[in-house]
Amino acid sequence: MARIAYVNGRYQPYAEAGVHVEDRGFQFADSVYEVCEVKGGALIDTTRHLARLKRSLAELKIAKPMTDRALRHVLGEVVRRNRVRNGLVYLQVTRGQATRDFLFPGSEANPTLVVLARAIDPAKVAAKAQHGIAVKSIADARWGRCDLKTVMLLPAALAKEAAREAGAQEAWFVDEAGFVTEGASSNAWIVRPDGFVLTRKLDHRILGGVTRATLLDLLKSLGVPVEQRSFTIAEAQAAREAFVTSASATVMPVVSINGRKVADGKPGSLTLRLREKFHDLAEITPV
Amino acid sequence: MARIAYVNGRYQPYAEAGVHVEDRGFQFADSVYEVCEVKGGALIDTTRHLARLKRSLAELKIAKPMTDRALRHVLGEVVRRNRVRNGLVYLQVTRGQATRDFLFPGSEANPTLVVLARAIDPAKVAAKAQHGIAVKSIADARWGRCDLKTVMLLPAALAKEAAREAGAQEAWFVDEAGFVTEGASSNAWIVRPDGFVLTRKLDHRILGGVTRATLLDLLKSLGVPVEQRSFTIAEAQAAREAFVTSASATVMPVVSINGRKVADGKPGSLTLRLREKFHDLAEITPV
Repeated sequence: MARIAYVNGRYQPYAEAGVHVEDRGFQFADSVYEVCEVKGGALIDTTRHLARLKRSLAELKIAKPMTDRALRHVLGEVVRRNRVRNGLVYLQVTRGQATRDFLFPGSEANPTLVVLARAIDPAKVAAKAQHGIAVKSIADARWGRCDLKTVMLLPAALAKEAAREAGAQEAWFVDEAGFVTEGASSNAWIVRPDGFVLTRKLDHRILGGVTRATLLDLLKSLGVPVEQRSFTIAEAQAAREAFVTSASATVMPVVSINGRKVADGKPGSLTLRLREKFHDLAEITPV
Repeated sequence: MARIAYVNGRYQPYAEAGVHVEDRGFQFADSVYEVCEVKGGALIDTTRHLARLKRSLAELKIAKPMTDRALRHVLGEVVRRNRVRNGLVYLQVTRGQATRDFLFPGSEANPTLVVLARAIDPAKVAAKAQHGIAVKSIADARWGRCDLKTVMLLPAALAKEAAREAGAQEAWFVDEAGFVTEGASSNAWIVRPDGFVLTRKLDHRILGGVTRATLLDLLKSLGVPVEQRSFTIAEAQAAREAFVTSASATVMPVVSINGRKVADGKPGSLTLRLREKFHDLAEITPV
């Protein structure tokens, strides 16, 4: 349970942490966010998360709420005050509060910054990884700028919910041409029968995952061949292994897709090896 | 300036009106809204607005926060407490507050209801209508359920801002086939040289505007021929008249599209007649 939330300069009791009803994050989804893993009391891949945040803000012309150095301080402080050793820290920036108008407010509006942290039991995540997860495919009807980490997340929430109703734990979005774009809250990967690892090339349809980037580094260091190209659901079902990446689950095996087992329906050996070695390559910043 | 906001059962001073940082409206755009015109101290087309709200909520499986009767009471109360004679009342419902998770929260989460009201000087709107507005076209890269009145509005805000930068007051979204879908915050209409009024048929790409529905009633009562079909920017530029409809501006003439005048570049006579007669057919509920 979260105890303390940071909102616009103040560390507040979680229950009292609010934003104004005319915050543009609330009225227009005019807001971006980041989620960083916390592991053993350290922040993982902070530099890459802050670089992506900077890009999201710049593309949307939202002002940076503070320097990277100050942001790092707040992230660490929220983790410490919530006594999170393992879990997540969540950061959200909006264009700020202003009388409702589609047009961007002038300089009178300051960006809103919210930071939250939450503990997650590593044993639970490990148990999930041991079994692997089921995936369900959904037509990708999201907007055209999924490369920006915005809170335009209603279709992702609907997709996750549809996956749950089908007994799956993640949804994979599929574009008009039949290719997987990404998961509702993860990037999608497969290991081909010839040993090549496949993941979609970055474009406006998918988020450039931080965990994806670090995993590409790891694959390179291990000498595993990688091809960045799109794949279909049929290709994924016929793959040797499948998995997803995200900050909250790092590398999570996928063992079934639309009710069909991937290989023998057990987490793949390369997937588990990547999961085990992931933090060797990640940036670790003690809080 | 708004004085009082309604939030979850309480009428609060506007400055203090907040929602929790983990409200799903703020974190996931998991929220719908309505905007009703207030004219001469009366609510306009309340029944249609509440029917659309009911549909948006049902499609997203968000619980209704209260009965229609209670909602009508709150809308009226917020208008009265803000002493709005002419202007808008804004209503937003979210799936509620819950620890961040893409999956819908269980029954422990109650929907959040926010109601705001704001006066708008009718003379200013009238002056705008006398000159008409300029429109700029933008590729429609919104999500696939624009028939639901959700707060997935970042692309609409970006489009309005791009229109402003081009000296226009509204953006018209254009689909992959080159047809206008709708405005960033309005439905789009043209009057063809043969006198037919055109507006796109309802589908998942556009919102079923309340003002659109009432205007169709008015056109029928006036015996004006209407065709519900898509049109291109070129057709609109060659039209006899063009206009947009929305609750906040009712019928607003469009006098230029992508820098090219519509007819003589002045508001069309049918458009102005529709604007004048609009409230004859609208539902008027004194507050």
